[in-house]
Amino acid sequence: MQVYINGSFIPREEAMISAADRGFLFGDGIYEVIRVVEDRFVLADEHLARMDEGLRGLSIQLSSEIRNEILNIAKELIQRNDLTQGQASVYIQITRGAAWPRTHTYPDPKVQPTVYLSAASFKPHTGLHERGVDAITVPDVRWARCNLKTVNLLPNSMAKQRAAEAGVNSAVMIRDGVITESPNANIFGVKGGVLRTYPATNYILNGITRQAVLKIADELTIPVKLEPVNESELFELDELFFTGTTTDIQPVVNIDGKKIGSGKPGEICRMIQKRYDNLLAGR
Amino acid sequence: MQVYINGSFIPREEAMISAADRGFLFGDGIYEVIRVVEDRFVLADEHLARMDEGLRGLSIQLSSEIRNEILNIAKELIQRNDLTQGQASVYIQITRGAAWPRTHTYPDPKVQPTVYLSAASFKPHTGLHERGVDAITVPDVRWARCNLKTVNLLPNSMAKQRAAEAGVNSAVMIRDGVITESPNANIFGVKGGVLRTYPATNYILNGITRQAVLKIADELTIPVKLEPVNESELFELDELFFTGTTTDIQPVVNIDGKKIGSGKPGEICRMIQKRYDNLLAGR
Repeated sequence: MQVYINGSFIPREEAMISAADRGFLFGDGIYEVIRVVEDRFVLADEHLARMDEGLRGLSIQLSSEIRNEILNIAKELIQRNDLTQGQASVYIQITRGAAWPRTHTYPDPKVQPTVYLSAASFKPHTGLHERGVDAITVPDVRWARCNLKTVNLLPNSMAKQRAAEAGVNSAVMIRDGVITESPNANIFGVKGGVLRTYPATNYILNGITRQAVLKIADELTIPVKLEPVNESELFELDELFFTGTTTDIQPVVNIDGKKIGSGKPGEICRMIQKRYDNLLAGR
Repeated sequence: MQVYINGSFIPREEAMISAADRGFLFGDGIYEVIRVVEDRFVLADEHLARMDEGLRGLSIQLSSEIRNEILNIAKELIQRNDLTQGQASVYIQITRGAAWPRTHTYPDPKVQPTVYLSAASFKPHTGLHERGVDAITVPDVRWARCNLKTVNLLPNSMAKQRAAEAGVNSAVMIRDGVITESPNANIFGVKGGVLRTYPATNYILNGITRQAVLKIADELTIPVKLEPVNESELFELDELFFTGTTTDIQPVVNIDGKKIGSGKPGEICRMIQKRYDNLLAGR
């Protein structure tokens, strides 16, 4: 498998970055994951627009030459790794770059950002989409700038690990009594036919799939309230589901050992899954 | 300058880590900075004990062979870099290691942690200690596990950069109306002869220098209240100072353009500086 680092395509075993890279020392960088279906990059413009937002949020200045090449690099990576057929994902990470000495302030003069891309084949979690998944609730201990898709991902990683150790698929994170996100997906609740999800503030990442689902809901004339689900009403919901680039639309049927709704994937989730499958398939 | 990575001493220009390192991808690691004065490692046991705590907090299992070698590696690094005379600092970072594929959950089976050490000569900020520094207030947007000294340091870096762009030395971070920390130091206030500092909860890093200052205060019979300073009483304080491994004891004389106390370093700060200088000098 080949990856891309700063201008070169190399075998992943040889993919090295400097120990002075601020991604390594500070988590000072952003990332994106793009889904690729039969060599078609799904919602690529949206991902790249969010990447730009993240770079702006961190004041990382990527030259327009490199910025405009990112999608081509991603496409070449898919070709070089023989991933043009079936499904794949591309991971893009951009950090502020490597600089000695280590300082909390950004390097001055600026250094060249580190651009890293990897690709992998991808198998959709079809079984989970069909049956639904279990989750646990965990406190959302993340920082207050969750709208930036940075590699400061330790709280997400710890929450996902806690779920794995509890023998469930994922976690539902709770901040100030309301449901925010899973460690790697947005969350929608359904109650009385109304879709509910945390508004796009600094306390969640405004997922590309989340935005696609909001558009689908609009097309299907499903009413939407951009209000978070309270922890106290979790078990009064009819449905709950995760949305994300590699998660797709994933019903959550059990949390902390208790059924959500009927304990089976719900109708509204099914309708949205169907439409989203069409979007993925390019139909 | 040489650094150490996973068993080898190498020139820092050649110091590379895998792009699959979880330090790079998730900020999934911890670090320590130890001050070295004339080849004496200041409060080394305390730093290494906190390193152990951090590793436990992240469930990173470092073999006891490597763990027990860390201080020797640090000492060898100081020697190899001709830093045995004068002052220096050693940076230690341990991440969960490199693993393909990238998953939020910890690699299973476990991988070898990445052990990285670097060293640099160090010049104490004597002028700043004498004159005091300026700062701005910024919101503390960090996560809720600040007690872990991890490399998820983006909020710290952003706050320090904001201070630099405002033309001041550092920032005073405020969470829920109270002063927590600077981006890279603990904060003490003095009011009516009583020292005040945020208690060692999950909202601050329990600094090694902070702990040394509390001990010094005890020896000097300065009364201490482990209570944070409210933002609203900032300008009613007699003194304010930062404490940290590379910060030492640094008076803050101006915040957001307004004087703290008399606008000059205070008496209690001076007393503590003196004792702390002795500690650094091994007296």
